[in-house]
Amino acid sequence: MEVYNDININQLKSADTSYPILTLLANRWSPRMFADKAVMRRELMALLEAARWAASSSNEQPWRFVYAFRGSHAYEKIFSCLSKFNQKWVRNAPILMITAIKEQFNSGKANYHALHDLGLAAGNMAVQAQSMGIALHHMAGVDWKKAQELLGVPDGFHVATAIAVGYYGGDPSALPDDLEETELTKRDRKPLEEIAIEGAWW
Amino acid sequence: MEVYNDININQLKSADTSYPILTLLANRWSPRMFADKAVMRRELMALLEAARWAASSSNEQPWRFVYAFRGSHAYEKIFSCLSKFNQKWVRNAPILMITAIKEQFNSGKANYHALHDLGLAAGNMAVQAQSMGIALHHMAGVDWKKAQELLGVPDGFHVATAIAVGYYGGDPSALPDDLEETELTKRDRKPLEEIAIEGAWW
Repeated sequence: MEVYNDININQLKSADTSYPILTLLANRWSPRMFADKAVMRRELMALLEAARWAASSSNEQPWRFVYAFRGSHAYEKIFSCLSKFNQKWVRNAPILMITAIKEQFNSGKANYHALHDLGLAAGNMAVQAQSMGIALHHMAGVDWKKAQELLGVPDGFHVATAIAVGYYGGDPSALPDDLEETELTKRDRKPLEEIAIEGAWW
Repeated sequence: MEVYNDININQLKSADTSYPILTLLANRWSPRMFADKAVMRRELMALLEAARWAASSSNEQPWRFVYAFRGSHAYEKIFSCLSKFNQKWVRNAPILMITAIKEQFNSGKANYHALHDLGLAAGNMAVQAQSMGIALHHMAGVDWKKAQELLGVPDGFHVATAIAVGYYGGDPSALPDDLEETELTKRDRKPLEEIAIEGAWW
């Protein structure tokens, strides 16, 4: 089908922006189908390296990434920690990651901003990926306690998200029907005025 | 002084990467001195628009941004909520923002990932800014209770960070001595192996 041509899907998914923004940001989306193409180790390293250079509170760098390639035992371990919903599609991704945060500063004080800073790092990763034709799909649906145990996450670190990583360009018709529909739906956001307020809320 | 030429400072601040990454990401840093140049409203809108298109859990878009231009009453309100340390330099920024998160999903369930998703949005904003020669300085040092009150942040939202926004290119010698030194120090990160682990932690 015409719409399954991946260039058209990426066009469909491109943001309808109120103000012009970088193509790298406008064209990013979170597929559940990926191209049948491996992401090589050196490519993954570029994604992680991009994450590494994000800003963080007191330069604490509270982000950690546990990654696994499809076909490995570790990939199955990560897979087993994901929600049933995510398990329906996530094997399409050649790489899976679990992210975790360091909950305290080196001083021992709780780091309220660790999750925020993980988001900055994951955002860097998404932009680097986009420049390489690689898509990320961040997932909240993780059994974090199970992941904590199965992946040997040490005390003081807390599992936060999972990330599916693969090249854009898969055929959405191979997805279950409901997910295929989402895959072909335009991206949508709240109006800018709702999220950005001048001066004060009221 | 030669080193105060802003091209040289930006070279000094450019990341020493283990793997090549986008220049936009490698060259981003968090100055405390900004160029003596206004950031126009339409430029700010491009930054906020970039934030708007980030990914979020269930597309909840839990991020909010309250912004103010230097010279306004609102700018002074935001200024008054920042830590003494941040107050030493932050007036160099022509725009200040306070960020907040929506703490619950529309369903009423707590949104553990709201802070993470705010980080994704702030990361988008940083990349858009970088492409325009604009720098962000994220701050954790905010009296969030005071900001909550002064800015009229509604129940259900929680102040998270502040952001200083301005063009790169200021003269660091105008900063207090300790901050001038930081401004001219190379950026540093943990080795990649410490933050990225294959398979499992142990």
